[in-house]
Amino acid sequence: MAEAAIQSGLRGVVAGTTSLSSVGAGGDNLRYRGYDVEDLASHAIFEETAYLLLYGKLPTRTELDAYLYKLRGMRELPAALKDVLERIPGDTHPMDVLRTGCSMLGTLYPERSFAEQDAVADRLLASLPSMLGYWYRFTKFGERIATATPDATIAGQVTRLLTGREPSEEIRRFMEASLTLYAEHEFNASTFTARVIAGTLSDLYSCVTGAIGALRGPLHGGANEAAMELIEQFREPDEAVAAVKAKLARKEKVMGFGHAVYKQRDPRNDVFKEWSRRLAKGAADGYLFPVSEAIEQLMRDEKRLFPNADFYCATAYHFAGIATPMFTPLFAIARVSGWCAHIKEQRADNKLIRPAAEYVGPDHVNFIPLERR
Amino acid sequence: MAEAAIQSGLRGVVAGTTSLSSVGAGGDNLRYRGYDVEDLASHAIFEETAYLLLYGKLPTRTELDAYLYKLRGMRELPAALKDVLERIPGDTHPMDVLRTGCSMLGTLYPERSFAEQDAVADRLLASLPSMLGYWYRFTKFGERIATATPDATIAGQVTRLLTGREPSEEIRRFMEASLTLYAEHEFNASTFTARVIAGTLSDLYSCVTGAIGALRGPLHGGANEAAMELIEQFREPDEAVAAVKAKLARKEKVMGFGHAVYKQRDPRNDVFKEWSRRLAKGAADGYLFPVSEAIEQLMRDEKRLFPNADFYCATAYHFAGIATPMFTPLFAIARVSGWCAHIKEQRADNKLIRPAAEYVGPDHVNFIPLERR
Repeated sequence: MAEAAIQSGLRGVVAGTTSLSSVGAGGDNLRYRGYDVEDLASHAIFEETAYLLLYGKLPTRTELDAYLYKLRGMRELPAALKDVLERIPGDTHPMDVLRTGCSMLGTLYPERSFAEQDAVADRLLASLPSMLGYWYRFTKFGERIATATPDATIAGQVTRLLTGREPSEEIRRFMEASLTLYAEHEFNASTFTARVIAGTLSDLYSCVTGAIGALRGPLHGGANEAAMELIEQFREPDEAVAAVKAKLARKEKVMGFGHAVYKQRDPRNDVFKEWSRRLAKGAADGYLFPVSEAIEQLMRDEKRLFPNADFYCATAYHFAGIATPMFTPLFAIARVSGWCAHIKEQRADNKLIRPAAEYVGPDHVNFIPLERR
Repeated sequence: MAEAAIQSGLRGVVAGTTSLSSVGAGGDNLRYRGYDVEDLASHAIFEETAYLLLYGKLPTRTELDAYLYKLRGMRELPAALKDVLERIPGDTHPMDVLRTGCSMLGTLYPERSFAEQDAVADRLLASLPSMLGYWYRFTKFGERIATATPDATIAGQVTRLLTGREPSEEIRRFMEASLTLYAEHEFNASTFTARVIAGTLSDLYSCVTGAIGALRGPLHGGANEAAMELIEQFREPDEAVAAVKAKLARKEKVMGFGHAVYKQRDPRNDVFKEWSRRLAKGAADGYLFPVSEAIEQLMRDEKRLFPNADFYCATAYHFAGIATPMFTPLFAIARVSGWCAHIKEQRADNKLIRPAAEYVGPDHVNFIPLERR
């Protein structure tokens, strides 16, 4: 029926209000609580953005220092959680590791009342990188690492855990920008999941566990990994152009282009593209940057599609030494700030989110007892 | 703004189509694929209903026997999962146990492609009772029990695991009915959560893990526990009436009454009420049944509210020997059949569920560098 068809996927249906982010009047900006995301990505560390989202204002120097100190103090994982992580097989999708680790953490440090929500949000912000790093290095190298690294920020810590070495200042700076750009994006599917769960007045861990599960899906968080898998097949722009043309002719989807909300451009793309260009210079396979540019141009010419945040993020992460399966987990480590801010917002003015369904099954069927079927 | 206000909580907004259940033309029936839920609850075991939801038709005797055999074969839990369950503290909310166990199971038997979805759904159906029972008996009594009990059905198995003894035929029959009545209910918040996650094409474990987290919320799955906590305070109908009147005067919510969808009656209530009446006869605290009836009458007189499925379910579970914190987990053990059926339905005609938000925050704010804040 027409009504259901129009609202398929709830596209364009206003499901609630938010003060956390907007795509601007023209739908081609991204602002967190009014601040242009380009400014935050260029001039702030990720924790400043997380603080802005969770606590409503950019921190002063004193507030930021206290916040960094607090988060650093929660990097160590409880023994029971490490036991659990060690039992997750090494070939598991790393998002399943974060999903399970988040849920388990909720049994060890439960949110006993909503008065604890800030403490739980901060703990998740501090713990997800440690969970990912601990599991990764245990299952890959058999190491039981100390997750409380000396790095001042989450970007520094997670890069060290995933690459096994202290990041250069340039790479750490890029990682701050990438986490900032992925921190928040309105009612995307994982954030909406978190809000639907929050609407039942469930605990914060349940909301974030559900959101991680949603972000895991290839239509949501997996796009940068899919973009990388495409790009890394080629060494030359011409080769990429021919292969992507053939893909388009076969009506295959090319990941990393277009967006459910943006129609003209993705404001995050410029920042990611510049970082990809810059980091390519120091990389052994820096030729992947011109390969990416050739694919971008082809997609503009052939499909009138622009690259979204995920496209150049892929090569930038790659040049920073991050393994492809870690791209979506990094997205989660950033987005947990936005998820928790949305959960707080949902709780502050809650109504159960419970839509209707159009029934399209059989009207009425008479029951037939088992023996007569 | 008006539009957002009208759609608050998405109430009445059609978010998609389903063939799985409907509340009938008058909105006071509940039918699974066209079958009246009263018939299924009276004449079928839970696995027949699960089969109907998951596979589209009521099974023949041969199909049902094969299905029961298959499900029984998956009651044993993998060692790594038992290790995880043993590390979850004994005072944890049991829904957090199911949430964590479900997520962990997804790392041990991952859904590698959607071709495996039926196998995963069946495994979850068979495993959730075992997880709950294993954790419960380990943390409460220090026992490492065999979860593969000799009981023919899930209702029999889960009752034995939770009460520590073989259920009487009457109690098992009630448990079949209760699981059947809780199996499916259209786009309720947990099912909608599962569908939002499924919309990203994530795996089935992610969808069910998220749904468990939503069902955990007191506005959703916790209502029968809250009803029990109210009812068990009283020994006499008069005492209950006086106390509930005082609650209403204080504008406190009385759980187990009214419904987001039903306006006249909850069709599941008649079945639960009859079972509560019947099981009260053999119970030491059978006086709780007339207490419940007095509260029902008061709520009709004072608030024009009818009891929903959760109200008499509470005392019926109690008379069956089920501890109150296990009520919501039993709901999950039943509803996983509906969740998985909805996930299959969402996948069969998928569109990412991504609504819009109305932005109500500051328009544009100039960035101020940290040193000048």
